[in-house]
Amino acid sequence: MAEGSQGRRAGLAAVEAWIEREVQRLGAEPVALAQAQGRVVAADVVAPAPLPPVDRAALDGIALGAAATVGAGAYNPITLRLGTEAHVVAAGDALPAGTDAVATLDQAQRAGATCEIIEAVAPGSQVERAGAQLAAGALVVAAGRRLDAVGLGLLAAAGIAALAVVCRPRVRILLAGPPGTRDSNGPMLGALVARDGGTLEAIRMLGRDRAALARALVAPGADLVLVVGGTGPGADDGAAAALAQAGTLAIHGMALRPGDTAGLGRVDSVPVALLPGAPAACLWAYEMAAGRALRRLAGRPPGLPLPSRRAVTARKLVSAIGLVEICPVALRADGAVEPVAGFAEAGLAAALRADGIVIVPEGREGHAQGSEVVVYLLGS
Amino acid sequence: MAEGSQGRRAGLAAVEAWIEREVQRLGAEPVALAQAQGRVVAADVVAPAPLPPVDRAALDGIALGAAATVGAGAYNPITLRLGTEAHVVAAGDALPAGTDAVATLDQAQRAGATCEIIEAVAPGSQVERAGAQLAAGALVVAAGRRLDAVGLGLLAAAGIAALAVVCRPRVRILLAGPPGTRDSNGPMLGALVARDGGTLEAIRMLGRDRAALARALVAPGADLVLVVGGTGPGADDGAAAALAQAGTLAIHGMALRPGDTAGLGRVDSVPVALLPGAPAACLWAYEMAAGRALRRLAGRPPGLPLPSRRAVTARKLVSAIGLVEICPVALRADGAVEPVAGFAEAGLAAALRADGIVIVPEGREGHAQGSEVVVYLLGS
Repeated sequence: MAEGSQGRRAGLAAVEAWIEREVQRLGAEPVALAQAQGRVVAADVVAPAPLPPVDRAALDGIALGAAATVGAGAYNPITLRLGTEAHVVAAGDALPAGTDAVATLDQAQRAGATCEIIEAVAPGSQVERAGAQLAAGALVVAAGRRLDAVGLGLLAAAGIAALAVVCRPRVRILLAGPPGTRDSNGPMLGALVARDGGTLEAIRMLGRDRAALARALVAPGADLVLVVGGTGPGADDGAAAALAQAGTLAIHGMALRPGDTAGLGRVDSVPVALLPGAPAACLWAYEMAAGRALRRLAGRPPGLPLPSRRAVTARKLVSAIGLVEICPVALRADGAVEPVAGFAEAGLAAALRADGIVIVPEGREGHAQGSEVVVYLLGS
Repeated sequence: MAEGSQGRRAGLAAVEAWIEREVQRLGAEPVALAQAQGRVVAADVVAPAPLPPVDRAALDGIALGAAATVGAGAYNPITLRLGTEAHVVAAGDALPAGTDAVATLDQAQRAGATCEIIEAVAPGSQVERAGAQLAAGALVVAAGRRLDAVGLGLLAAAGIAALAVVCRPRVRILLAGPPGTRDSNGPMLGALVARDGGTLEAIRMLGRDRAALARALVAPGADLVLVVGGTGPGADDGAAAALAQAGTLAIHGMALRPGDTAGLGRVDSVPVALLPGAPAACLWAYEMAAGRALRRLAGRPPGLPLPSRRAVTARKLVSAIGLVEICPVALRADGAVEPVAGFAEAGLAAALRADGIVIVPEGREGHAQGSEVVVYLLGS
């Protein structure tokens, strides 16, 4: 019998523990650097050679032997022959043989085939040493890191043209709500799946066709299945029964508002999340459970991927004891937060109008005025 | 004569003022909802009809007239005929004519063609009123908002299948550094352009070919041109001269480290940014100037698009007075920050190893130990 069934809802700690136990990071695939933005590195990447490979000029100037400039000054210029004793170099050029420093254009004046050095130059001055950025064998990017512009630039600089990244989880969305209603969960979940690193394997509007749902639950090709709608106690609600028949229904009913009819289970090795059809409940059941599973498959941090900050409550936040409650809040100019119209009143629109949400834990009846809370920011 | 030339570098306030004055948001284009994730809404979108369009059941239950349940209790059940006096409804169903409330399955028991009500139900109970989420004409998403999952879901719920979004800026990248060096700026800038909402119009490796650079600067088809390399004082550095000849060189030299040889100007109406070829300098000249122009074209907030938090310095952060200095820092377990190897020593690798950066303003020689600073987080 699934945890949470028969009216007893599973606590979110149990939901998170199930996901941690049952859902593992997918395998790796090779990808070219040009396609790697946003992907999660599957294994540590080390530098095949030092970067830079040789000592090189750090800026435009005159490469020379520092010893030859001892005593140079504005009233005692030292003349060096270009091409033999000194060399014009651009930033990034390898240091010519016999030189160990670069004079800036303020320290040297060119005059035909020679240049005059008007300031002594220290050995190593304006030289970028071989390996200064990366020694051979040094870690370039660590496993688990998502590749951003800096990581891609450094990999390119290190001469790495392709690398192993975690496969993108293929997500199947099965819309099992009553037919004829305008679907807002499909577009919303499609965007959430993309945000969390998944690809849409298929999105199918099944309505109340139980046979089609049973077939779609067991069809191969997905790494995660989201069933949307049909999770409630109504006579037509068949999502939990269908999952129990096709595989395992591990959790049905979560101590979460909105989202309390959500469920979790699996068919063979594929995790399946049951999401309520009401859009606000669908959103938060995704964020707190289904999305957590997806982020784990993708090798990302499993927590809520929203920026957060600490803030103080300007008014009491009311919530029901025994449920994790998602409370929409407005951020005031002074940085404090206050409650705004909740999901029960305004549905999904509450999330669009709020600046953020506060997650009130199961054991609390809200937060008193003046409490410090964590606000997860929406729409930023 | 360009501001910042002849050794006088432009302050970042002047750079930002030039961008604000010279670079405007692009026009709008229509886009289908399925392609709208991440796009910036060009004009306010209002609801064409109330959402929900009619009063409807908020959950699975029995729709009825509340007046008929007055006095009902576990020991005084009131029997109603299904199909006439009461109706089985699922969450989201329109409320049948003659009903004004929904009894939950705890308040009502079905028995064949009738149901027994064992608790009085208040009028309006479990009814989602027409327009509760959105009144007709109410704002759904405001101009300037980037469309995330919630915005897409609400637009779909409101029946909006397409909308006007800000055009994606087309960015041309011209690599004008010395030939034969391994390019890391192209992959890095490509990722930054994608992050900031632009599309790559072209990326061309020109080396020191000045004629090709001159032609590429004036070719039509781009909304922003980035010239990378050739910005320094070296004999081969022709980027600033090429821009001055093709259009206007407004700024050359910025009080920014790394990135002090960066420049800005335009060719006809197209802004052109000159970025240093050294990768760390290229990165910060992009983030502080070129990226700011791109974000303005794209209708996004122009500031640094990195999450930030306040922190206290565990050790002094040293910087040069007269320059805005980008100081890489590590975040300690106690939340304080301390300096790590800088860009001058470690190049781009400094940005990969640091947890974040602190931007020290021009007028300061760093931040004393124990100062409160803003840390922009990298790699998250």
